[in-house]
Amino acid sequence: MTSKRLMAVAVACGLAFHGISNAVAQQAYPAEGKTAKAQASARQEFKITRVTPEYWRITIDHPPFNIFGPESIPMLNSVVTEVENDPKVKVVVFDSAVPGFFLTHYDFSQPLEVTTSMPPGAATGLPPLPDIFVRLARSPVVTISKIRGRATGVGSELALASDMRFASREKAVLSQFEIGAGFTPGGGPMVRLPRMIGRGRALEIILSGNDFSADVAERYGYVNRALPDAELDKFVDTLARRISSFDKQTIADIKQMVNASTLPSDKEVGAEWNAFITSVQRPAAQHNVKKLMEIGLQKNPDVEINLPKYTGQVNLPDKK
Amino acid sequence: MTSKRLMAVAVACGLAFHGISNAVAQQAYPAEGKTAKAQASARQEFKITRVTPEYWRITIDHPPFNIFGPESIPMLNSVVTEVENDPKVKVVVFDSAVPGFFLTHYDFSQPLEVTTSMPPGAATGLPPLPDIFVRLARSPVVTISKIRGRATGVGSELALASDMRFASREKAVLSQFEIGAGFTPGGGPMVRLPRMIGRGRALEIILSGNDFSADVAERYGYVNRALPDAELDKFVDTLARRISSFDKQTIADIKQMVNASTLPSDKEVGAEWNAFITSVQRPAAQHNVKKLMEIGLQKNPDVEINLPKYTGQVNLPDKK
Amino acid sequence: MTSKRLMAVAVACGLAFHGISNAVAQQAYPAEGKTAKAQASARQEFKITRVTPEYWRITIDHPPFNIFGPESIPMLNSVVTEVENDPKVKVVVFDSAVPGFFLTHYDFSQPLEVTTSMPPGAATGLPPLPDIFVRLARSPVVTISKIRGRATGVGSELALASDMRFASREKAVLSQFEIGAGFTPGGGPMVRLPRMIGRGRALEIILSGNDFSADVAERYGYVNRALPDAELDKFVDTLARRISSFDKQTIADIKQMVNASTLPSDKEVGAEWNAFITSVQRPAAQHNVKKLMEIGLQKNPDVEINLPKYTGQVNLPDKK
Repeated sequence: MTSKRLMAVAVACGLAFHGISNAVAQQAYPAEGKTAKAQASARQEFKITRVTPEYWRITIDHPPFNIFGPESIPMLNSVVTEVENDPKVKVVVFDSAVPGFFLTHYDFSQPLEVTTSMPPGAATGLPPLPDIFVRLARSPVVTISKIRGRATGVGSELALASDMRFASREKAVLSQFEIGAGFTPGGGPMVRLPRMIGRGRALEIILSGNDFSADVAERYGYVNRALPDAELDKFVDTLARRISSFDKQTIADIKQMVNASTLPSDKEVGAEWNAFITSVQRPAAQHNVKKLMEIGLQKNPDVEINLPKYTGQVNLPDKK
Repeated sequence: MTSKRLMAVAVACGLAFHGISNAVAQQAYPAEGKTAKAQASARQEFKITRVTPEYWRITIDHPPFNIFGPESIPMLNSVVTEVENDPKVKVVVFDSAVPGFFLTHYDFSQPLEVTTSMPPGAATGLPPLPDIFVRLARSPVVTISKIRGRATGVGSELALASDMRFASREKAVLSQFEIGAGFTPGGGPMVRLPRMIGRGRALEIILSGNDFSADVAERYGYVNRALPDAELDKFVDTLARRISSFDKQTIADIKQMVNASTLPSDKEVGAEWNAFITSVQRPAAQHNVKKLMEIGLQKNPDVEINLPKYTGQVNLPDKK
Repeated sequence: MTSKRLMAVAVACGLAFHGISNAVAQQAYPAEGKTAKAQASARQEFKITRVTPEYWRITIDHPPFNIFGPESIPMLNSVVTEVENDPKVKVVVFDSAVPGFFLTHYDFSQPLEVTTSMPPGAATGLPPLPDIFVRLARSPVVTISKIRGRATGVGSELALASDMRFASREKAVLSQFEIGAGFTPGGGPMVRLPRMIGRGRALEIILSGNDFSADVAERYGYVNRALPDAELDKFVDTLARRISSFDKQTIADIKQMVNASTLPSDKEVGAEWNAFITSVQRPAAQHNVKKLMEIGLQKNPDVEINLPKYTGQVNLPDKK
């Protein structure tokens, strides 16, 4: 069953991906079929607020933990597509409606069949999640992650794919927990983080699977800045309004020029994803995720809030 | 007229540049003609002080705001050429004689004819300003920017082309204001800043056009270090004297080796310049610069000192 | 004699190296000959402690200054080879048993003949020291430098070749002193440091030859983190135990993926080494090292502890 769960994740995320032009990649997002029907009635986990026509907020709202499930992929794709197709929007701020969580890890409890049907959609030829992240980074629209609560796994990866990251000094926690669950991350930290903060600190974050406070995250460059929680909203809102008042073409030119020397190639992004897909099928991942689910992952708030403590306990005895 | 002003800047800075081997690039710096005569009688804005034969200071002295005009380009080229041709000099410190300003933006009020005559000179084949910055970065001589007051636009770009940057904690302000004036920067921040401080913080600086205090600049790596104003001169002088006592060949070897993995290519530098030249001719730049001049740019100290406030106000209504 | 000393260092370190496949490089480490006999009876300067089968400590123990001599190279190679061949080890912590010193510079007093005999061994084709550092960085085993005391020259380079660096806030000092002795570094800082902390701060460190406190080293990213001395051991031990509990294959995958975008090429590593070998044969190095030895290098603790003060005094008069 754990095996099934991991396969669900793997397939949801493009298990069969072996290059940028395969069939799975071209069937990336749910469409007209029964899966689509399920989607239609599903609660939207990513809500767009048009603060102004040029400045939008995308609020993550999937209580109680902002877990990222197979159903989340088409929902995130949908709002990102809306951003891409809008002629006016210049700035998007990602934030959360769920106290204590910005966005966390994959859903490990979904049955396989929910996630296997994937219609065309991927612009980059990459599997859905890396495809979305690559599109965000390349978009002429400026993206800002406003981090309050835990940003681990996909949450950290969405933040890293954003153009800027601002964190609540008291309430933000960032991490890549994956190694503790027995697999490698897949959504970009191995190719994005070292380019941004250097090899040593990137390796510490990814190899330790530890939580990083906003203060340390700022010191490491993992976020642009940590701000007192009481000032965070105003700071990000002021910055977003300011940038959204500027010339759209100039914004696009600047992003394109900076992207040229800072973004990983699609090939590197795809290689990281493939490593993730391979790793979730290995015994260590199967064992650790099963144990984490038994301990209370996705149910017990303490397990979600203190995830590094629990990932430190679940490893195979013969690996200790 | 604003259009003329922008064209003046554009031509002064190599408007017609479309590659590294064109005619304009080969006619880079004023020579024998009437322009040269005007130069001969012009007040020198970059003054060399030979502290020792091995350690020079180049002091920027163009009150009241240390604006960088078309006339500044050949003057800066002249002192940089002197550095290049001197057999003894090992360290050059850039500083300012004008309180409140290190070096700021282009002069937007010069008439077109002052700046169109450009004789040969460019070593790299790039237009004058990027040519000078590329030569400084590649020079075997060590360059240090000692920043007290505002370093925006060209000021920030000169600092970024230097090998090291030290800032007065109380009196230094760094920024790339250009986006607020409706165009992209041209003198290097899009290719230099992300390599030095990472994608996220570089995008924040260039896309916000905001002022950055010495403290934040240090935290971001925009400067090497912020020092108490009372200690800045001694710190930089001690460092410059120390390095200038070392073996010239060893200094040159170290710079060459470090440059190999850190400098943008000439092609990237040229592409940033081209983007700038293109952007200053667009309506947003025409509109914003005209408005800024009307508000008091280059005349009213408050506009110069609080530039981000004013760039935040001048954007086209239909862009708001 | 100083010339002989420098040649000793140069030969010990692969003077004749001009590519990745030459004979010297293939005769990298002492073997069966008389040199090996000398080695056999030599005091081990790198001691392995198996804290657990998965977590080892390698303690540098060469009092009174932890100088890195020609005899140190095969000893370090031997422990690194042991790490490479062990099927269980996942984390190695480098620390020091000598108060005040993590690991310092080459031994400048060894006679030439001790160091000329070099049997095969180099895995990368590079000369011994860069070969060891490249192997450490590429190893699937995680390496952590716990820095208490001075880490200069080879000490800083070992730290930079490690995956992470943690420093005692009160007792760690990092530097690349070489420029003051008249030559360029050879063990990696020119190719590793700029990639990790950016061009400006890397140039300041390498061109100044100054000491950097743990606080500034942390601010610059030269170390991951500075910790109060009383907390350093516990912090590093907890981190090492945690990582060593994780899946070995997942650790290896993460290092490999991060290495792909962060490590210099062998060619760059070799070029830095060649520049070092060339520079130690120049008059500046010959002069400065001779003077430093006369002043008390390797004998007088004050010279070792305040090395930047003395390197600032020994330069050729005609270079001042």
